[in-house]
Amino acid sequence: MVEISEKFKYAPLIVFQVILLILYFIFTTYGGADDVGVRGYEDTHVMIFIGFGFLMTFLKKYCYSALGFNWLLAAMVIQWALLCQNFFHMEDMQIRITKKLLLEADIMSATVLITFGALLGLTSGPQLLFIAIIETALGCTNLYLCEAVFQVSDIGGSIAIHTFGAYFGLGVSAALRMKKVDPPQGVQRLDGPSYVSDTTAMIGSIFLWIYWPSFNSALSSSDAEYQRAVVNTYLSLAAATVTAFIVSSIVNHEAGKFDMVHVQNSTLAGGVGVGAVANFFISPGAAIAIGIGAGVLSVCGYKYLTPAMEKFGIQDTCGVNNLHGMPGVYSGLLSVFFAFFITSETYGSEMEHIFEAMGEGRSAGVQALFQLAALITTMVLAIGVGFGTGIISKAPIFSPLKETERYDDKINWELP
Amino acid sequence: MVEISEKFKYAPLIVFQVILLILYFIFTTYGGADDVGVRGYEDTHVMIFIGFGFLMTFLKKYCYSALGFNWLLAAMVIQWALLCQNFFHMEDMQIRITKKLLLEADIMSATVLITFGALLGLTSGPQLLFIAIIETALGCTNLYLCEAVFQVSDIGGSIAIHTFGAYFGLGVSAALRMKKVDPPQGVQRLDGPSYVSDTTAMIGSIFLWIYWPSFNSALSSSDAEYQRAVVNTYLSLAAATVTAFIVSSIVNHEAGKFDMVHVQNSTLAGGVGVGAVANFFISPGAAIAIGIGAGVLSVCGYKYLTPAMEKFGIQDTCGVNNLHGMPGVYSGLLSVFFAFFITSETYGSEMEHIFEAMGEGRSAGVQALFQLAALITTMVLAIGVGFGTGIISKAPIFSPLKETERYDDKINWELP
Amino acid sequence: MVEISEKFKYAPLIVFQVILLILYFIFTTYGGADDVGVRGYEDTHVMIFIGFGFLMTFLKKYCYSALGFNWLLAAMVIQWALLCQNFFHMEDMQIRITKKLLLEADIMSATVLITFGALLGLTSGPQLLFIAIIETALGCTNLYLCEAVFQVSDIGGSIAIHTFGAYFGLGVSAALRMKKVDPPQGVQRLDGPSYVSDTTAMIGSIFLWIYWPSFNSALSSSDAEYQRAVVNTYLSLAAATVTAFIVSSIVNHEAGKFDMVHVQNSTLAGGVGVGAVANFFISPGAAIAIGIGAGVLSVCGYKYLTPAMEKFGIQDTCGVNNLHGMPGVYSGLLSVFFAFFITSETYGSEMEHIFEAMGEGRSAGVQALFQLAALITTMVLAIGVGFGTGIISKAPIFSPLKETERYDDKINWELP
Repeated sequence: MVEISEKFKYAPLIVFQVILLILYFIFTTYGGADDVGVRGYEDTHVMIFIGFGFLMTFLKKYCYSALGFNWLLAAMVIQWALLCQNFFHMEDMQIRITKKLLLEADIMSATVLITFGALLGLTSGPQLLFIAIIETALGCTNLYLCEAVFQVSDIGGSIAIHTFGAYFGLGVSAALRMKKVDPPQGVQRLDGPSYVSDTTAMIGSIFLWIYWPSFNSALSSSDAEYQRAVVNTYLSLAAATVTAFIVSSIVNHEAGKFDMVHVQNSTLAGGVGVGAVANFFISPGAAIAIGIGAGVLSVCGYKYLTPAMEKFGIQDTCGVNNLHGMPGVYSGLLSVFFAFFITSETYGSEMEHIFEAMGEGRSAGVQALFQLAALITTMVLAIGVGFGTGIISKAPIFSPLKETERYDDKINWELP
Repeated sequence: MVEISEKFKYAPLIVFQVILLILYFIFTTYGGADDVGVRGYEDTHVMIFIGFGFLMTFLKKYCYSALGFNWLLAAMVIQWALLCQNFFHMEDMQIRITKKLLLEADIMSATVLITFGALLGLTSGPQLLFIAIIETALGCTNLYLCEAVFQVSDIGGSIAIHTFGAYFGLGVSAALRMKKVDPPQGVQRLDGPSYVSDTTAMIGSIFLWIYWPSFNSALSSSDAEYQRAVVNTYLSLAAATVTAFIVSSIVNHEAGKFDMVHVQNSTLAGGVGVGAVANFFISPGAAIAIGIGAGVLSVCGYKYLTPAMEKFGIQDTCGVNNLHGMPGVYSGLLSVFFAFFITSETYGSEMEHIFEAMGEGRSAGVQALFQLAALITTMVLAIGVGFGTGIISKAPIFSPLKETERYDDKINWELP
Repeated sequence: MVEISEKFKYAPLIVFQVILLILYFIFTTYGGADDVGVRGYEDTHVMIFIGFGFLMTFLKKYCYSALGFNWLLAAMVIQWALLCQNFFHMEDMQIRITKKLLLEADIMSATVLITFGALLGLTSGPQLLFIAIIETALGCTNLYLCEAVFQVSDIGGSIAIHTFGAYFGLGVSAALRMKKVDPPQGVQRLDGPSYVSDTTAMIGSIFLWIYWPSFNSALSSSDAEYQRAVVNTYLSLAAATVTAFIVSSIVNHEAGKFDMVHVQNSTLAGGVGVGAVANFFISPGAAIAIGIGAGVLSVCGYKYLTPAMEKFGIQDTCGVNNLHGMPGVYSGLLSVFFAFFITSETYGSEMEHIFEAMGEGRSAGVQALFQLAALITTMVLAIGVGFGTGIISKAPIFSPLKETERYDDKINWELP
């Protein structure tokens, strides 16, 4: 009996896949080829499936699960997000699928993968799938709020993707209230890396880093905006990387040595930190300054904040708070700050595309307020619904993990 | 004496490389830059050299050979295929090389790498090179038959590349008649993965998955066709992935757990399954349905068919029958089915590019018959010539492997 | 006290990053979007950060340092090179940053990474950073000499990037005068690969190989030139790969077996060998011939020359002399040779873009002489300044390594 229920543990997912199938038959068709030149789709695709997937292989005995769940979750979420995002924009009850819609679905799947990073090794497959389905629906709604209601500018998704995904994950984690436990004597600790797993994690980290300029610029609407977003992100990432190495060598308890956790993650904080303002006229120097700030913030978060949160029962396995959460908030606040300096002299014809509402008369100060409102709304929704989802996900039907099953591939995989 | 013949084991390959050199001097020149905007060349390049190469590193002690032979074979075959494919289309006895021709050479090399997948660990280097040279010549001829004689539509090469490569490989394998043998007691089994080799195999698998939409759309002739091929492939892959995970967890003998073989391979079956119809107006819903079917077919093939074939002495190390063979046939049959629904209302001006003969008056029913004829011809040629090539490759001059030399890098490499 | 100085070992880098920040604020702004369609930026980015990074993970206990320093150096150098390269071309005291400038900064960072390859495992972090800062400034000056003064054609940077980076590194290495030392009995040798580290190195090697055509064609100024550079590089790489495998199996002391060092490196020599003439009308056959030559040259270099140099105290851990140095010189000499055959009949309107000075009347013979002059100047400058930099880098302030600290991650990293 137990055996049979184990066998069909993922059966509800069949139902969900069939529902998706039916919804696609009813509500979708092919779109026109106007947006076929959309940039960044392939690069973003690499970030989602290779980048996030391999970054999470740093745990010594959770590589299969990291790669497998990353893939399974994203493959499911991209189908689901494409519908959720575009239910708000249907014509004749039809979603007209273009390459741009595929790109946006990929981007939305990042929220779920960030959340997965917080929970890595702490939840079962069915829990993850349940969380992903809820989070996608809410994430698309929140994105709609940010874009269509608050009309904020957030080209790299630092608010609607990174902040959202991180705090949703921390909300779930807070609900799970898991304490770090030491394994019984003689049993290997699984909550750390091996030499090889840290090396494979670098595949993910570096690919994320490489294509982050493509990610932050993908949804730009003109060549000039696109190039500015690429330049700002490239410089911010470079500066964050140099900074992360330096700060890591200073704060490390082995003086002068680097910590792989910082190198794999805080290097990327420059991409998140500049995300919400990547297409602004901030100046290349400011992009570097933002990257430096993001690098410091992120390494210090890993060093001081994550251990403190763990004491309160908020686990964050990949430290997404330090890579996506705080840098996302930082980026959101930067967008509030820089919004005050928006003028039609500076932005010219780009103005109405980047700040739609300002094209229709909203003032710079009001735009700044809306940027702040979007950030706060995102955090409140993410934490609140994340917490609720976490509570529900503890139900036995989702087979939550026992303490001894954490960070362990063998509960999910037939191992060699 | 033996030593000397070992030393020059690959000497015939020098001869072949010099022949290629001469043929290039005589028959090739630079083409015009009209097709310079051809899409998918770089992405396909990654699939061939990283994708296939790393996917085959799953065996614990055959990583060097997998990567090395993959690279050597593809580097030789792309030079050879570019000539073989275009001997049929010379002007003034010259092949005018463009980026599109490089792309087509890459695509043809996939057939050889699929065949290599079937034979992984079972053949010597000289055998592989001999097989590759024959297969490329025949594969290009078969492609010419499909394209220019039968005038079928097969944008993703599910018939002419995947089905061909898989059944050619199975033909060779049948000729080799190798039985699975257990190693002597105390000797490690080499025909399985290690934890690390399965992780590196995921690099290949995921990159193949990511760029498959680029592969299936690369040879499209309009933006609309291109985008449709991308959308269909993206959705089919996503659905096949979700399905492969679910079915894997159901059929696995450890109930509810995933099997890496399925995850690495059957996830990709959605790309093959939709290949021959990726540019058709099948509807996005149908793309998802096709992906679901491909996922089920592929996992069940791995679970039930491969072990059965092994009993008949047909080894298939990577299970290419389940990833390329059966999904290729499935896609071919889908192209027969969907051909019946081709109308000039649906396809408009794309009609004459996608179904050339129909632009000149061929009916939908006749097109369907030709799709079927191409599929059958491909299979018959591949199995027949594959079998013959396999028989010849057993000659001592190709230094076939002894039983104890299988799946072992040490016969091909100086190891650390 | 020692502890404190260790802790702030990388503090001077903070100063340098802040100087960069200030220079960017003063001297840079966003450029126009004219060059936004520049090709090869993303692909080159992958080569620099994944390609070089992973290629250098072949040492068994230096994977973290290879990946980490590669990343840190490149992230610092791209910021610095963008300034150094464009100080020569400022308008109104401003550098207008475009995507093309980012690409050129990436390309320049390759020189430093090539130098790092020669010194892999032999120097401390502070030494590397000091060397990188000097080398970048000199490399940009040398590039300016080649391009603007000598007006040579070197699209793939075989002279100004590969030859420069390799001989700068050998210059430093000669100054360091390190002897190969055997570890004390019972201590593991660290100057070789493990099975896994050789596999991860292939990630780097293959990605370099895949995107080399993009690298060699990135700075082309017309579609036709671009396509020719892609075709020539693709063919040269393919031929070099086949050749490297064959020659490796012949010269290997285990007859008929391949050596991973050759496979990882000499396969790429085709890209360097054809670099300086990739956009020339050399004919596809000649591209293959060049690749064959490069493959032979490179494998023989690894087999015979590197051990000989080691006896003279010139270490070259990655053998950059065989992959970048000699193939770079070979390519430079090829550019001298092929320059004699430049005619305006062959090149038409491309003439003035590829050979600017010839558009203004320089003869083919004089162009050939200038190509030679650029090659010689590059080598002299690189070796000379490299040697001087090496001497200075031995100062205690740069914490040079003790013999027992070589090739060892544990001096740079907190290890699991």
